[in-house]
Amino acid sequence: MRISESGGEGAVIKFVESICGGDDPRVVLGFGDDAALLQSGERLLVVTTDLLVEGTHFRRETMDPYSLGWKAVAVNISDVAAMGGEPTFAFVSIALPDVDIGFVRELYQGMEDISRRFGSRVVGGDTNRVTGEIVINVAQLGEVEKGHQTLRSAARVGDRLLVTGTLGDSLAGFRLLDALGAEKARVVSEEAVMRHLRPIPRVPEARAAVAKGLIHGMMDLSDGLAIDLGKMCEASGVGARVFPDRLPVSDALRAAAERLGEDPAALAASGGEDYELLIAAAPESAQELIDTVRAATGTLVTEIGEFVEGDGAVLVDGSGAESPLRAGWKHF
Amino acid sequence: MRISESGGEGAVIKFVESICGGDDPRVVLGFGDDAALLQSGERLLVVTTDLLVEGTHFRRETMDPYSLGWKAVAVNISDVAAMGGEPTFAFVSIALPDVDIGFVRELYQGMEDISRRFGSRVVGGDTNRVTGEIVINVAQLGEVEKGHQTLRSAARVGDRLLVTGTLGDSLAGFRLLDALGAEKARVVSEEAVMRHLRPIPRVPEARAAVAKGLIHGMMDLSDGLAIDLGKMCEASGVGARVFPDRLPVSDALRAAAERLGEDPAALAASGGEDYELLIAAAPESAQELIDTVRAATGTLVTEIGEFVEGDGAVLVDGSGAESPLRAGWKHF
Repeated sequence: MRISESGGEGAVIKFVESICGGDDPRVVLGFGDDAALLQSGERLLVVTTDLLVEGTHFRRETMDPYSLGWKAVAVNISDVAAMGGEPTFAFVSIALPDVDIGFVRELYQGMEDISRRFGSRVVGGDTNRVTGEIVINVAQLGEVEKGHQTLRSAARVGDRLLVTGTLGDSLAGFRLLDALGAEKARVVSEEAVMRHLRPIPRVPEARAAVAKGLIHGMMDLSDGLAIDLGKMCEASGVGARVFPDRLPVSDALRAAAERLGEDPAALAASGGEDYELLIAAAPESAQELIDTVRAATGTLVTEIGEFVEGDGAVLVDGSGAESPLRAGWKHF
Repeated sequence: MRISESGGEGAVIKFVESICGGDDPRVVLGFGDDAALLQSGERLLVVTTDLLVEGTHFRRETMDPYSLGWKAVAVNISDVAAMGGEPTFAFVSIALPDVDIGFVRELYQGMEDISRRFGSRVVGGDTNRVTGEIVINVAQLGEVEKGHQTLRSAARVGDRLLVTGTLGDSLAGFRLLDALGAEKARVVSEEAVMRHLRPIPRVPEARAAVAKGLIHGMMDLSDGLAIDLGKMCEASGVGARVFPDRLPVSDALRAAAERLGEDPAALAASGGEDYELLIAAAPESAQELIDTVRAATGTLVTEIGEFVEGDGAVLVDGSGAESPLRAGWKHF
């Protein structure tokens, strides 16, 4: 029976966990969150890894090599941030066809620049020549103080639901690149395009809130609010109510949405690859969290809903009526 | 200018090191050895990563899924052993086309079994569906006591050159599989075929010698004696003399070589993927090292040559005449 007939990627993940899981005193957290947490001296070691295959995860027509390197590392640093940690070292495995050597230089410069920005370093890897597609794997290490780790399974009933930054920009940028090509897309919204090509993980935002113990649960937004909040609810055994009018939307997203003829709120609710942080905080901590992150980083944190008893996430409109939060949700 | 016109993979590696290198007090050893070494509490963290792409690194016709999983992890554990360390955790990224779900189960069972054998665990990863080839990346962590790390750059003039186990079996196994197919190849030499499909990294051998401080320099044999000894000489700034009549050759290799019409010593000198350890030890430590490893593990360690002033490795025949040790070297 093929993977597609057996439940798809979910079935693969279940297999892996059933074969490789099991208790181990050295493992604080194995599969199932943004990263693994391992005992390692005074702090916990945070480890995450992410594989990118050309054609499946990116295309060279819309992704320049510098951005490709940047993003390959940034998405891993974002996973470390989502655990409350700070990134330390990256290991990059790469399979390259016979591209221009300048492509290689740009690619690694992008990796190096995003790493340095957050105190991390690319310190090892594996290079391979292939005849097919480009493949890049980044294994990112980080550290978090014991007790400060922020799991996606730790949201509690009554917690407020908060999110950093603005939502939907990356999807808008991708749609612009796809519809118009790189040059014209940048004219419409350089900001949305850059949010897609060069996401900036929310490390200092997470660290500022974690240092004050203001977070119950956290994860990063890679698949979009609808999907990722569903995962957080499932992991925590809670439900969530989201107020769509509160979703933080940038001017760049509005401009891009207008050009694309799309609904900004729908892009915000379903758009992936924003690499913002989804946070569960106690009601009495929510405002302090917002103020702390703003003071430390200048970044906006917005309360967009609450965690409740139940399962799954719903949208609550102005009249109080509820509808399921789905990836294809339309505002109007 | 394309990679192939710029010096190939060596040029890529130089680029990566020039962009991503540079001193960092947390990094004991970055690029250039079997694994990186990082400050992490009382012990050093050992990290290595290896990417396998179907068609380039393996073919499904000659590599069953259990062996593929086993080998993908084993080669990384071997890198940890080569640093003197013990493996702790593996992170597996995978891109899978729509294969049979049994393939996935076998693959991960192979990874799990080799990991457990050496006290390591698969604790995280990333799974992806693709339409093209299978891609597997393993990032392996390990630990080594500070001061016990064994670098390939640490061979000294006057050191004896030793090697664990026997050489050439994996290449013989591969040649048999390639020429005869899996079933017939196993009839000729199950042992050689299994050395190719399911290498057993030399973790306890390395640890026993390291615990007694008997090793100056070490690396694992992935590309074959000729290539890897050349790398060790270059990294250490020394030359090496190898006595071909001393190369340890198994009965399995002799049988396979006879069936293939090849020279056993040539297979031993140039065959890759043996994952034996190449060791530089002080003359006064060589016999104790041989005895210690034999007592702890039952594994044969053989003195096959010596490190001398100069650069590169030469073969020294019975009359004392020297000839360069090259990958294509023929004994007769």
